[in-house]
Amino acid sequence: MNKPPGILKGMRDFLPQRMILRHYVTDQLRKVFERYGFEPLQTPAVEYAETLEGKYGEEADKLIYKFEDRGGRNVGLRYDLTVPLSRIVAMYPDLPKPFKRYQIAPVWRAERPQKSRYREFYQCDVDIVGCGSMIADAEVVTIAYQSLRQLGFKGFRILINNRKILQAMSELAGISAEQVAGVWRAVDKWDKIGRDGVQRDLTEFGLTDATIGRLFAMLGVSGPAAEVLRAIGAKVAEVPVGRAGVSELEDLVSFLALAEVPPEFYQIDLHMVRGLDYYTGPIFEIVVDEPKIGSLSGGGRYDHLIGQLGGAEAPAVGLSLGLERLIDVIDELGMAPPEIRSTVTAVLVTVFDPERQAASLAIAASLRAAGVNCEVFLGTEKLANQLRYANKKNIPLAVILGPDELGRGQVVLKDLLTGTQQTLERGQLLPAIENSAKA
Amino acid sequence: MNKPPGILKGMRDFLPQRMILRHYVTDQLRKVFERYGFEPLQTPAVEYAETLEGKYGEEADKLIYKFEDRGGRNVGLRYDLTVPLSRIVAMYPDLPKPFKRYQIAPVWRAERPQKSRYREFYQCDVDIVGCGSMIADAEVVTIAYQSLRQLGFKGFRILINNRKILQAMSELAGISAEQVAGVWRAVDKWDKIGRDGVQRDLTEFGLTDATIGRLFAMLGVSGPAAEVLRAIGAKVAEVPVGRAGVSELEDLVSFLALAEVPPEFYQIDLHMVRGLDYYTGPIFEIVVDEPKIGSLSGGGRYDHLIGQLGGAEAPAVGLSLGLERLIDVIDELGMAPPEIRSTVTAVLVTVFDPERQAASLAIAASLRAAGVNCEVFLGTEKLANQLRYANKKNIPLAVILGPDELGRGQVVLKDLLTGTQQTLERGQLLPAIENSAKA
Repeated sequence: MNKPPGILKGMRDFLPQRMILRHYVTDQLRKVFERYGFEPLQTPAVEYAETLEGKYGEEADKLIYKFEDRGGRNVGLRYDLTVPLSRIVAMYPDLPKPFKRYQIAPVWRAERPQKSRYREFYQCDVDIVGCGSMIADAEVVTIAYQSLRQLGFKGFRILINNRKILQAMSELAGISAEQVAGVWRAVDKWDKIGRDGVQRDLTEFGLTDATIGRLFAMLGVSGPAAEVLRAIGAKVAEVPVGRAGVSELEDLVSFLALAEVPPEFYQIDLHMVRGLDYYTGPIFEIVVDEPKIGSLSGGGRYDHLIGQLGGAEAPAVGLSLGLERLIDVIDELGMAPPEIRSTVTAVLVTVFDPERQAASLAIAASLRAAGVNCEVFLGTEKLANQLRYANKKNIPLAVILGPDELGRGQVVLKDLLTGTQQTLERGQLLPAIENSAKA
Repeated sequence: MNKPPGILKGMRDFLPQRMILRHYVTDQLRKVFERYGFEPLQTPAVEYAETLEGKYGEEADKLIYKFEDRGGRNVGLRYDLTVPLSRIVAMYPDLPKPFKRYQIAPVWRAERPQKSRYREFYQCDVDIVGCGSMIADAEVVTIAYQSLRQLGFKGFRILINNRKILQAMSELAGISAEQVAGVWRAVDKWDKIGRDGVQRDLTEFGLTDATIGRLFAMLGVSGPAAEVLRAIGAKVAEVPVGRAGVSELEDLVSFLALAEVPPEFYQIDLHMVRGLDYYTGPIFEIVVDEPKIGSLSGGGRYDHLIGQLGGAEAPAVGLSLGLERLIDVIDELGMAPPEIRSTVTAVLVTVFDPERQAASLAIAASLRAAGVNCEVFLGTEKLANQLRYANKKNIPLAVILGPDELGRGQVVLKDLLTGTQQTLERGQLLPAIENSAKA
C-alpha cells in the first residue's frame, strides 16, 4: 500500500454534508441575483498571465498562481472574477449595456493559509458594466443586503467609502504620490490595530506629526451617513475630486433609501480602503461583529479596468460575496434552515435477501418516479448493517420488505429518527413518506 | 488603449445565453443524481502531481497541466474527477460505504484543441465506492440513461464491454503482454477506421495474420446482449478471467432489466476499449449517431485505483457525462425546452425620466417581492433606447410608467415579442405578468 498523497495546504475537499450546505447557499444567491436580472457568466480558470498581472497591486501580484503551459505561454489561475469579466467586456464590445452578470466560481491565491483564508476559495460576484450612475452602485449593494437577509443574516454592516474622497484627503493632508499607497495600507488596519497603531505605523513610514494630524482630523468624522457626508464634504470641498466623491456617495445613499435598505445596515466609513488597485470610486465592505471573521464581502467601482484590458473605457461597479466566510458564519451561528439535512436521500429501501432484491428495486423505481430521492441498499448484507448505513448517513426513513409483508402486498416504513415503524399497504407508502417529509 | 489580451486556445468563455442553457442541463443532472441518493462532493482544482501521474496511461500523462507552486511542490490541475474521488476515499476511510457521490466540475487537459474537444471542460460524474456487485454498475448506467431521457435524448446507445473479456481475448489470441496496450488502442478505432483499418494497423504493429484472425473471430460476435454474451462466453470459457467477465456482464444486464432500461438502448460491444488505464471490469461508453460527435459519456469499474492511492482496496464503479457534448447535441437538435429563454429577466421596468426613477424602483421592488425576475433600466435615456436594450436581450415584457398613467395609478405593460400593450391598474400588473409567463 502506497502512502496516501493527501491534499495541498490551503486547498479543501468538501464532503457531501458540507456540499449540501454550499449548494443551499449558492442556490439562494443565484435566486437573488437573477431576481435583479443578473445573468450567469463563466470564464476559464486559466488566463494569460498578462491579463492578470498589474491589476491588483504589487503585493497581490505575487500571490497569483503562475506557470508556463506546454506551448510556452505564460499563464495563471484567476485571482478574482473582476479582471476576467473586464477582459470579456473588452473582447465582446457588442454585449448589451448595461451588462449585468453574476459568477459563482473558485479563485486561487498563493496566500499563507490561516483560519478562513484559503488558496482556493469561491467568490460570488455581481457586477454592472456600462452604467456610471450611482443607481448601479446602489443596486449591487442592495443585492448584497438582500442576499444576506435571504440567508438569515441579521447583524452585519455595509461599510461605504470612496476612493475619490481618499484621494482628496491625501492631497489636503499633504501626502506625496509615492507615499499614498503605503499610507492607505496603514489606515486600512484601523479596525485591527486602532488609531494609535495606525499613528505609530504612519510615523514609522515617515509622515510628520502635522501631516498625520491633518489626516486624522478628516478620518475622525463619524456618525450617520448624511452627517458624515456633510462634515467630510465641508472639509474636502476645495478639492474637485473630493466634491465629486462626496456627491457620488450622496446619490448612492439616496438610491439605497429608495431601494429600502434600512439605514442601520450601512455606514460611511472613511478608514475603509480596500486593497485592490483597480477601484476608482465608491468602495464597499461588509462586516459582521459576531463571529470575528473579517469581511464577508468587498467591492467597488472600477471605471478604468476595462480600458486597461484593451476595451473602450466603460464604467463598472461590482461586489463579491465570499462563500467561505458566509458558510463559516452560517455554521457558527447555526443559521442553516432545518430542511437542509446532511443527506439528499429521503428513504433507504433495504434489501431483505438476494431473492427479494428485485422487489426492492421496483419499490425504489416507483418512489423515484414520484419524485422521492431514494436509495436501494447496494448489497444483500443483513438488515442491521443496512440500517446502520442509513443511520450513519442520517437518512430519515427506511423501507423494509420482509417475506411476510411482501406476500401480503405490504411494506414496513421505519422512522429512523424516532425508531417507530408502521406496516402499510403498498399504496399507502408514498403518502406516508410525503407526510413524514412535511412533519 | 492596450491590445486586448484575449483568451487561451482551447479555453472558453460562456456568455449569459450559453450559461443559462448550461445551468438548465446541470440542474437537471443534479436532480436525477440526487433522485438516486448520490450526494455532491467537491475537490480542489490543484492536486499533488503524484496523485495524478501514473493513473491514466502514458499518453494521457503528457496532457496533465503540471507546474511547480511557490513552495516548490509539484502540482497539477485535475485531469478527471475519478482520481480525486479515489484520493478522498483513501484519505477518509470512515466514509459510509457504499459511498455514492456526484461531482459536476471542470477538468483540464493540454490537448490539441479541435471541434468538441477543449482544454477546460466539464465532467458530470457519478460513482459508487464500496460495492463489488453488478447492481452498482447497473445503477450508474441506469442514471446515465435516466439523465439523457430527462434531457430529451432519444437516439443513443450505451455500449458495454468488460476489461476482463478483453484480457481473455488477448490471451487466447496469443498477444504478448508488451503488445496488449497497442493492440487495444488499434481496436478502439474500429468505429472510426473500420475492420480493414484496424487489420492494417495491427499488421503494421507486428501481429501475424493468424493472431489477427483469432482475435477478429472473437471480436466479430455481435447481436442482442444475451446472444453476444452466450457466444463470447463459449469462446472465452477456458480462461478464468474470461468466464468472470462474461458472468459480470450477465449480472449487469439482468440488473438493467430490473431497472427497466429498455434493451434497445444498450448493447455489448466487444470492440469498445476506453483509453484510461485504471479500468478493471465492465466499461461503458454512450454514443449518439446524430449528430456525429463521438461519445457523450464513458466510465467503468476501477477496483484497484483507491489502493493505488494509498487507501485500503475498495471496489468502485463510475461514469462521466461530458457536459460540452451534451450541450452540443441539445443545440444541434434544438432540444432545449421553450421555457429556457436567452435571458433570466422576465420584465424590464423602464424609467420615464429622472423624476420618475423612484416610481420605477418601487414597481420593481414589488415585482421582485412577488418572485418576478425583473430589471429597472439603469439610466434615464430615452424610452426607445431602453426598449432596444430589452429587445437585444430578448426580455419579453416591459413596464412603462408615463406621467399620465402614474397620475391615474396605472401602468402600461408592453409585450415586446408581439408589440401589443395594455394599460392596467397598478394592482393588475402582477397577474398580467404571471399570465403572460404562462402563455
